[in-house]
Amino acid sequence: MSPENCKIVLIGAGNVATHLGIALQEKKFSILQVYSRTLSSAKALGERLHTAYTDNLENLNPDASIYLFALKDSVLPEVLNAFPHFPGLFVHTAGSLPMQVFENHAEHYGVLYPLQTFSKERNISFERIPLFVEARYPDDELLLKEVANTISQNVFHLSSEKRKYLHLAAVFACNFTNHLYNLAAEILEEQSIPWEILQPLIQETAAKAEALHPEKAQTGPAIRYDQEVIEKHLSLLSGSNKELYRILSQSIHQKSLTSSRSQQESPPIAESPT
Amino acid sequence: MSPENCKIVLIGAGNVATHLGIALQEKKFSILQVYSRTLSSAKALGERLHTAYTDNLENLNPDASIYLFALKDSVLPEVLNAFPHFPGLFVHTAGSLPMQVFENHAEHYGVLYPLQTFSKERNISFERIPLFVEARYPDDELLLKEVANTISQNVFHLSSEKRKYLHLAAVFACNFTNHLYNLAAEILEEQSIPWEILQPLIQETAAKAEALHPEKAQTGPAIRYDQEVIEKHLSLLSGSNKELYRILSQSIHQKSLTSSRSQQESPPIAESPT
Repeated sequence: MSPENCKIVLIGAGNVATHLGIALQEKKFSILQVYSRTLSSAKALGERLHTAYTDNLENLNPDASIYLFALKDSVLPEVLNAFPHFPGLFVHTAGSLPMQVFENHAEHYGVLYPLQTFSKERNISFERIPLFVEARYPDDELLLKEVANTISQNVFHLSSEKRKYLHLAAVFACNFTNHLYNLAAEILEEQSIPWEILQPLIQETAAKAEALHPEKAQTGPAIRYDQEVIEKHLSLLSGSNKELYRILSQSIHQKSLTSSRSQQESPPIAESPT
Repeated sequence: MSPENCKIVLIGAGNVATHLGIALQEKKFSILQVYSRTLSSAKALGERLHTAYTDNLENLNPDASIYLFALKDSVLPEVLNAFPHFPGLFVHTAGSLPMQVFENHAEHYGVLYPLQTFSKERNISFERIPLFVEARYPDDELLLKEVANTISQNVFHLSSEKRKYLHLAAVFACNFTNHLYNLAAEILEEQSIPWEILQPLIQETAAKAEALHPEKAQTGPAIRYDQEVIEKHLSLLSGSNKELYRILSQSIHQKSLTSSRSQQESPPIAESPT
């Protein structure tokens, strides 16, 4: 199927729908319509893509080749319950939902999961983004792979079972990581130090992961088991940040023990006295 | 003082000593000698820099302009206690130690703290690395700034008091972040998925921090307060990783509440039933 003949309706108008919609339209796919439960969101993305939009499921276009659901996991079942039984291929983009969420709602269904973090403020190139596809029927999976291949060079088959672990790993590598940047920024801002001073460190930490397994790249007081520094740092922290520091340092230390068992067992990191 | 006239003795032969030694030598500073408590380490770095090396404090060269201490925090006091009282400028590179660790050991002392992560396996350019300097006497601080400016474009004065917070922030932004990459890699490797599939996500997460404050860049189930996904993820985890997931998700959620107080208060993330 040529992109022009592959008609897509976007269900959702958030970050993933926006970035996928833009990327697909650039590759000449026909974005027939945008649906969102919030009219203003449907309108914003519809206008950006110069296409129709609606907040009413009864007004959905029934002729799409693909209905691409990019919704919050908790919203998808709700929307599906009210969704018409169209003949097109129903596809969601969620890491944690099995393909079978569609089984009572469509004959043809599958998944197209992009392993990336999307923010509205940021343009992104899909070229390097790994896309993981899966479909109930082999022909549908072929179609999904064809679509995915037009926007990315890294398209793979992945089962629903494995995909949920991939999503979990992504939460650690991206969402939690970004939150640590945020906590670091907060620590500096409280001292009136501009957080941007951390940028070269953040970039190098990530760049190392292009070249070295993160196990080999680990540095800092916890991997050296430098208890004096760890205790000093704990004394500067309070509340959940202190708890987080302790658990992360302990986890770094534990992981170093299991990966090189020759090292001597050390006691757990103690409560800070202050 | 021209670099050629600025004679440096490196105390320590680990990652920081190695990278600083190489960078300074490239800028024509004279690295007179390398000291390490471990002869093989002193030898390795001494040979790399084509200079003298020793594991014996009694054999130290007394004529250096600068003694650059790049040692584990817990080791520095020990080494200092046995260290000769030379007239040169004593400088350490530690984030968490005040400049005053030198006060009973030298007349001239200061700090040169590079905010970066150093691994032996990886070459690094100092150009963009922020260097933070401090010295007891203004003339010594000028000298340190001169030295620092030859290798980096980002040289700042920072007090010992502020530096410890900077170091703490760096642990969050770098060491803990890298450990999260490591945990993510472990999750994938247990599922026989190559960890490298995370690289574009890791790079984009870091690249975002060049453009957006991390508070604005936060994505994922915790910031959406998607309890269903959070519970699913908790059910896939055990032990300290599960604890870590819960605390980090809670912390992300809490931070979003304090930064936009209009949002409704939500209950804490519950223990997973499984």
